[in-house]
Amino acid sequence: MKKKIGVVLSGCGVRDGSEIHEAVLTLLAIDRNNAEAVCMAPDIEVPETNHLTMKETGARRNVLVESARIARGNIRDIKDVRAADLDAVIFPGGFGAAKNLCNFAEKGAAATIQPDVARLLKEMAAAKKPIGAICIAPVLIAATLGKEYAPQVTIGTDAGTAAAIAETGSLHLECPVTEFVVDKKNKIVSTPAYMLAEHISEAAEGIEKAVKAVIDLI
Amino acid sequence: MKKKIGVVLSGCGVRDGSEIHEAVLTLLAIDRNNAEAVCMAPDIEVPETNHLTMKETGARRNVLVESARIARGNIRDIKDVRAADLDAVIFPGGFGAAKNLCNFAEKGAAATIQPDVARLLKEMAAAKKPIGAICIAPVLIAATLGKEYAPQVTIGTDAGTAAAIAETGSLHLECPVTEFVVDKKNKIVSTPAYMLAEHISEAAEGIEKAVKAVIDLI
Repeated sequence: MKKKIGVVLSGCGVRDGSEIHEAVLTLLAIDRNNAEAVCMAPDIEVPETNHLTMKETGARRNVLVESARIARGNIRDIKDVRAADLDAVIFPGGFGAAKNLCNFAEKGAAATIQPDVARLLKEMAAAKKPIGAICIAPVLIAATLGKEYAPQVTIGTDAGTAAAIAETGSLHLECPVTEFVVDKKNKIVSTPAYMLAEHISEAAEGIEKAVKAVIDLI
Repeated sequence: MKKKIGVVLSGCGVRDGSEIHEAVLTLLAIDRNNAEAVCMAPDIEVPETNHLTMKETGARRNVLVESARIARGNIRDIKDVRAADLDAVIFPGGFGAAKNLCNFAEKGAAATIQPDVARLLKEMAAAKKPIGAICIAPVLIAATLGKEYAPQVTIGTDAGTAAAIAETGSLHLECPVTEFVVDKKNKIVSTPAYMLAEHISEAAEGIEKAVKAVIDLI
């Protein structure tokens, strides 16, 4: 039986969803470690950003429907997924992690979390199952688990985001793009990816190492 | 100076655009070979497919705007790109290659080609610059260059598509998913990717080898 690794997507595109490179590199690393990706996303509507102009369009897109593009249609509504279905879970980055799965982008440490995302994350932490978070996604882990678990995470080197992570009760550790941070006590792995990467190969190196670390913690 | 490799995208999603995994794996392989990707797409409107239901929605999306999601905004309108700007060009797969960049999906060997795509492909062939084609994209090469160049390409093993490729004046060669075919005379490299792949790591292996082969032909 292959290990089942949840991959929580937040749309399809760096500005209004999952960062596409990070999501695909995560799926590749899971497969190369002989594990099985279980893609999922919440069934919610969010503002659409035009990725040519980088401006909001005024239209809305559905996070589950758009995430299905990255998953080639093989995706579940996160409300139907329980920690018992998974051996670990990984959150790729992209602004969607900070504004669709929670509202950290707007509210910082006072963020509220999308209810099904919060429920699954708390279930995984309570079950001591490994959690991976890429790029900006560690803010979601911090905002959800900070008070109870005081997780240690990285988003690279951004001082403002690091300060907001500290406000959640979590600890931010600086980390270079091709490396990752492990919170052994809480089994939480994070890597900066496009918070720092200037080239896709840099993001890939950190993500490959982080995904392997998540799977090794199972 | 890094070699400049054009990457022609056809939208963002396997059913109405570029296959996202193939496009990202192409960008990764280009970067890992120390070359520079030059993403481009035509500025045209096409029917939208919902990737959760796999049904057309009746709405339309813009190929350049959606492709910008894969390119993280770093993309050009293909009408402004000349063969002189590139050392090689690669076409990822996805149905967009067969129904947005041309209408092979509907017309087979009688397909017409999006004019800027046809112009760039003919310029590249005339300049003897390498051309890569992934998954279903070799049908675009065959339909555009078949009569003049009789290219040898693969889309894997699909007999119907192979027959339609033969009708263009091109030659189809069978090829396993983790390998690639080189037409040395025409400097055309192709690999089956998701025409055959059951796992992303299979597509990745063929794409890594094919992209390296394209760059080695420069």
